[in-house]
Amino acid sequence: MNFASDNTAGVAPRILEAIGKAAEGFALGYGNDDLTRQVEQRFRTLFEWEVAVFLVPTGTAANALGLAQITPPWCGVLCHANAHIVTDECGAPEFFGGGLKLLELPGENCKLVPDTVKAAIDRYSGHVPHQVNAASLSLTQATEGGTIYRTDEIAALAALAHAHGLAVHMDGARFGNALARMNVSPAEATWKAGVDVLAFGATKGGAMAAEAVVFFDPKRAEAMPERRKRGGHLLSKHRYLAAQFDAFLSDDYWLRLARHANDMADRLADGLRKAGLQIVWPVEANLVFVLMPEHLDRKLKAAGASYYVRHADMLAGGRNPAGDGSLARLVTSFATTEDDVQKFIRLIQNG
Amino acid sequence: MNFASDNTAGVAPRILEAIGKAAEGFALGYGNDDLTRQVEQRFRTLFEWEVAVFLVPTGTAANALGLAQITPPWCGVLCHANAHIVTDECGAPEFFGGGLKLLELPGENCKLVPDTVKAAIDRYSGHVPHQVNAASLSLTQATEGGTIYRTDEIAALAALAHAHGLAVHMDGARFGNALARMNVSPAEATWKAGVDVLAFGATKGGAMAAEAVVFFDPKRAEAMPERRKRGGHLLSKHRYLAAQFDAFLSDDYWLRLARHANDMADRLADGLRKAGLQIVWPVEANLVFVLMPEHLDRKLKAAGASYYVRHADMLAGGRNPAGDGSLARLVTSFATTEDDVQKFIRLIQNG
Amino acid sequence: MNFASDNTAGVAPRILEAIGKAAEGFALGYGNDDLTRQVEQRFRTLFEWEVAVFLVPTGTAANALGLAQITPPWCGVLCHANAHIVTDECGAPEFFGGGLKLLELPGENCKLVPDTVKAAIDRYSGHVPHQVNAASLSLTQATEGGTIYRTDEIAALAALAHAHGLAVHMDGARFGNALARMNVSPAEATWKAGVDVLAFGATKGGAMAAEAVVFFDPKRAEAMPERRKRGGHLLSKHRYLAAQFDAFLSDDYWLRLARHANDMADRLADGLRKAGLQIVWPVEANLVFVLMPEHLDRKLKAAGASYYVRHADMLAGGRNPAGDGSLARLVTSFATTEDDVQKFIRLIQNG
Amino acid sequence: MNFASDNTAGVAPRILEAIGKAAEGFALGYGNDDLTRQVEQRFRTLFEWEVAVFLVPTGTAANALGLAQITPPWCGVLCHANAHIVTDECGAPEFFGGGLKLLELPGENCKLVPDTVKAAIDRYSGHVPHQVNAASLSLTQATEGGTIYRTDEIAALAALAHAHGLAVHMDGARFGNALARMNVSPAEATWKAGVDVLAFGATKGGAMAAEAVVFFDPKRAEAMPERRKRGGHLLSKHRYLAAQFDAFLSDDYWLRLARHANDMADRLADGLRKAGLQIVWPVEANLVFVLMPEHLDRKLKAAGASYYVRHADMLAGGRNPAGDGSLARLVTSFATTEDDVQKFIRLIQNG
Repeated sequence: MNFASDNTAGVAPRILEAIGKAAEGFALGYGNDDLTRQVEQRFRTLFEWEVAVFLVPTGTAANALGLAQITPPWCGVLCHANAHIVTDECGAPEFFGGGLKLLELPGENCKLVPDTVKAAIDRYSGHVPHQVNAASLSLTQATEGGTIYRTDEIAALAALAHAHGLAVHMDGARFGNALARMNVSPAEATWKAGVDVLAFGATKGGAMAAEAVVFFDPKRAEAMPERRKRGGHLLSKHRYLAAQFDAFLSDDYWLRLARHANDMADRLADGLRKAGLQIVWPVEANLVFVLMPEHLDRKLKAAGASYYVRHADMLAGGRNPAGDGSLARLVTSFATTEDDVQKFIRLIQNG
Repeated sequence: MNFASDNTAGVAPRILEAIGKAAEGFALGYGNDDLTRQVEQRFRTLFEWEVAVFLVPTGTAANALGLAQITPPWCGVLCHANAHIVTDECGAPEFFGGGLKLLELPGENCKLVPDTVKAAIDRYSGHVPHQVNAASLSLTQATEGGTIYRTDEIAALAALAHAHGLAVHMDGARFGNALARMNVSPAEATWKAGVDVLAFGATKGGAMAAEAVVFFDPKRAEAMPERRKRGGHLLSKHRYLAAQFDAFLSDDYWLRLARHANDMADRLADGLRKAGLQIVWPVEANLVFVLMPEHLDRKLKAAGASYYVRHADMLAGGRNPAGDGSLARLVTSFATTEDDVQKFIRLIQNG
Repeated sequence: MNFASDNTAGVAPRILEAIGKAAEGFALGYGNDDLTRQVEQRFRTLFEWEVAVFLVPTGTAANALGLAQITPPWCGVLCHANAHIVTDECGAPEFFGGGLKLLELPGENCKLVPDTVKAAIDRYSGHVPHQVNAASLSLTQATEGGTIYRTDEIAALAALAHAHGLAVHMDGARFGNALARMNVSPAEATWKAGVDVLAFGATKGGAMAAEAVVFFDPKRAEAMPERRKRGGHLLSKHRYLAAQFDAFLSDDYWLRLARHANDMADRLADGLRKAGLQIVWPVEANLVFVLMPEHLDRKLKAAGASYYVRHADMLAGGRNPAGDGSLARLVTSFATTEDDVQKFIRLIQNG
Repeated sequence: MNFASDNTAGVAPRILEAIGKAAEGFALGYGNDDLTRQVEQRFRTLFEWEVAVFLVPTGTAANALGLAQITPPWCGVLCHANAHIVTDECGAPEFFGGGLKLLELPGENCKLVPDTVKAAIDRYSGHVPHQVNAASLSLTQATEGGTIYRTDEIAALAALAHAHGLAVHMDGARFGNALARMNVSPAEATWKAGVDVLAFGATKGGAMAAEAVVFFDPKRAEAMPERRKRGGHLLSKHRYLAAQFDAFLSDDYWLRLARHANDMADRLADGLRKAGLQIVWPVEANLVFVLMPEHLDRKLKAAGASYYVRHADMLAGGRNPAGDGSLARLVTSFATTEDDVQKFIRLIQNG
């Protein structure tokens, strides 16, 4: 019953197999190999666009490098106060961005809405050179709360950003989970809706350590090779990053893995709801946030369940977990089994 | 006949196997897993010391993070002008070190000697706060020229550094190749000789992507967790880094892999010498630098041999490659075969 | 009727005279002169403590350098959301601090209170190395709203900070205005209450361009000389900075200048109140914030009055200026005349 | 007999007077005042070009800000190994430039020549993204050795730089001394010869603390306002910087001050030569480098003379000061008197 994170899972079989296969023979380092070329082509096919792609080993690197490309050091990034870049990257965006500023905004369901963003753009523009001005907008897809931005929502936010000269970044650590839920193409969910840079995660989705920074306007990728190298994120045996994405992207493997994870989250949420617990946000990806009574928490932990409790201030408007409870985050993955889900729910049903 | 780099090789079998094994089941992320604990213990056993260890995916990250820990932004790192940190890391030490300065020194055989280092310490001390002062000394082991610092040489340089308040960093991207050549223990080659921080490389030695920053005084590692995370170098599925080192370090696997690479380099050098070519530096690890006449270069490349040509200014004192020749770098690895070596030599012998 | 800022004023006569006098003869550069030594002694006498002092030309530099000394790049500074370091320094703290984070907190009257600070300390501690942790607390004295922290308030906040390992910074751009209002000594208002680093401003108080970074524990000033130089803030003809502070600090000149400014603010506030306007925050220094009806704003501007309008979101809790009004900031200085104050008030009285 | 530096002098009378005059009345801060506008116009007239000008208080700031505008963090600045930016700014260029690299080159008379620069451009280009590539060239005018680049020399170096995509920076801390010696216009000595950014110094020339960063292509100044502010170098009472330049530039005052300094250096050099001492480099500005026998050094110091001794490694090719001597640097300024020069020479003549 490991619901601690999608990164507690192992590596999906086809990805592991691809790594093993890539281990044979010689290949030039630093991305100058055929497999890397092939994966770049896969990205272009997937997104139906001449994207520029850079593979890196971590999501923090992918986000920080992408944001640094579109945000000058004296500017800021509009983002949700619960965004991973704010709460869990130890200042990586600030570091890679030469001291840029994350401008934290509130929003129901861990999502930003146009009104808030518009007010923030107004607030963080002008008064130059005294004030840090907003240069970009970052959306997490799926969000840290497990919710999803629909394409029309992305389009509205991106249009607003672009109208004021801001570029749009998407933290897609769980991009697969979002896509698996929506009936749209990767292109529709990104550049067609106005996304300029996507951190496309594979690690949480089933890879070992592989993320892609995807620029939908290759001109925005200028000096990205230097930035990646300088950050220590250009792998010498780069083909192993490529191998992971090659398997991940072929035959919709990434979507199939994500669908399983989402499905497990749905079942979990259903069971919890039926047991009378309060699900905090709509379950649209592979995360379930639930207000967990203390006695159940103790019981589940005793039975070997693993999950994290989050700061109550994630709850917009200061909505507090009921009395003795806490805000529990349950994460499913490609590796989550139905058995574990049922076992977990049964423990709760039995109170 | 791939002698382009040791990173063109694949992954050594036992390491690949370990990765596959680590892929099973669940484990906490970010290094909070049992395998990581076990590997940390392996390092302590190997070095006979209470070392603090941090695993990262690239050598550039390992060097840059280690140097940043021991060098304030307003200070400098004494190093050889040919050092990898100078020539091939795109300013990563400067980036992670907040703008520190690499103070490049000359030295025969790509090695630093006490006289040069002493003069540089004198030169880069005092005149505060106007001048960048030296705060650390970086040695590459084995060097970029394929030579090796003997333990007494390290001890002499480190004693000099310590006497003036400088810390000692070792870029051990090819630490295994150096150790395999010397009849000393890892402890003797590092902290017993005065090394404070070691970037211990496994990637070139046979891993997929795994390097360790080893602090011999854990107090020097303060805030290293934050620095690593902030640099995007804390892998979420950290156990795969641990798995690589676990296999690498067990049963002297790392030394056996290195010995093979060194042996191939020796044979290569012997053949080249016998064919009348000039070997530039003593062959003590897995690199052979040779002055390559142009017609041979053309012939070898035509036959499918792969290797890089280096800037002639790597040659100390401006010694130029003979007339029409160039400075060729041949690198062997755990994966280099005797067949390839012989084939390469035969091509040369036949002129 | 210039109430735009205290930096629109000229230079106070005795300071100008001191600059002229310092222009004679030769003196060693970079602070190695007698006048600098004398000023350092003045600071020690003033604060009754062995302070370490560094003079710089701007308040932004003073704040950013001081904060960088007490906050590692991967940590954060607790501060009021209206703090000058947040709103008006274009990311200087982030730049000098290597990408540190300003953690903005709300607070009535532009002041922080223990409850908010305690909650923030709890929020921004632990979860290492993922989360940016709070390493320091910054208080502005007098605040950006023209209010003042009393010594017991400072002591309570500082005790809280120290109990959790945070250092305390004070942005004293208007330190003189605060001191002139309170019946306490500089020592009581700073280190005796727990302040660790003070940016002591003279520019707004009557100097040309002179600020001092005062460390109450000289050990915290380690490498500050390098940091100042590296930031381009070590003036070569340093004696001119010293000359300004020499005059500023002698014979309580700084307090006398500040008292005049405060007095002018009091009269302004009285007049505005009597005319029925709403003063937003208690007037305790040389700033008056007033809700200004649009027709009066137009009239005053037409009559040549100069002042700035601030973002309404400075108002805690979203309190909005009445209907057609705006949040006007009126700043007095040593150079403000009674005539100008009366003229301004009369314009308002006559509606 | 103060020859320690041109910054040991006071403030030239007309500049001091201008400061006093600027102290009257009110003026908007941060450069939004009439005097600043007037000075910007003076620069445009002086350079016969639509320059963009930014005033800052120190030469280190001027250099570091200018270099940061034309050199990405992952690139390098070609410069002489004796350049002030290398030896005396404590890493300010690296700090403001986000970790850029100074690429030090040798050169007789402290000057760079095309051959060396060409070789360096070849050396520091390509091998992307591994190697730091050269993005700019920095020339000091007059040089740290007191020599001067003639306009044809600047033009040749700048043409070379531009042909390879490098921008050209000039450290003009002693620009006046250089101009006063040459029979050319400021335009001819800068943009007409290919200079892109000039750090135009007034401090050493007679101001209190005033330097200008002059961009000959205003497009290169984009975001410079933010960069200056963020560096703490936007003075709030900016008119005092403007006042200094206003006086400095009017009626050729800057050239007259410089001519006096140069004249004093010439006399000093003549006297030293006649006394049999060896002048190291051609005396073309206000610096005299002389090999000073130890007994004379003792005698002069005893008589109250003040000057610095420089590292012998400033001497190109390792030329060593004779036997017991040292490399003495004598600097004259607008404030140097003939009496002091004669007194100094007499002391030497009398052995």
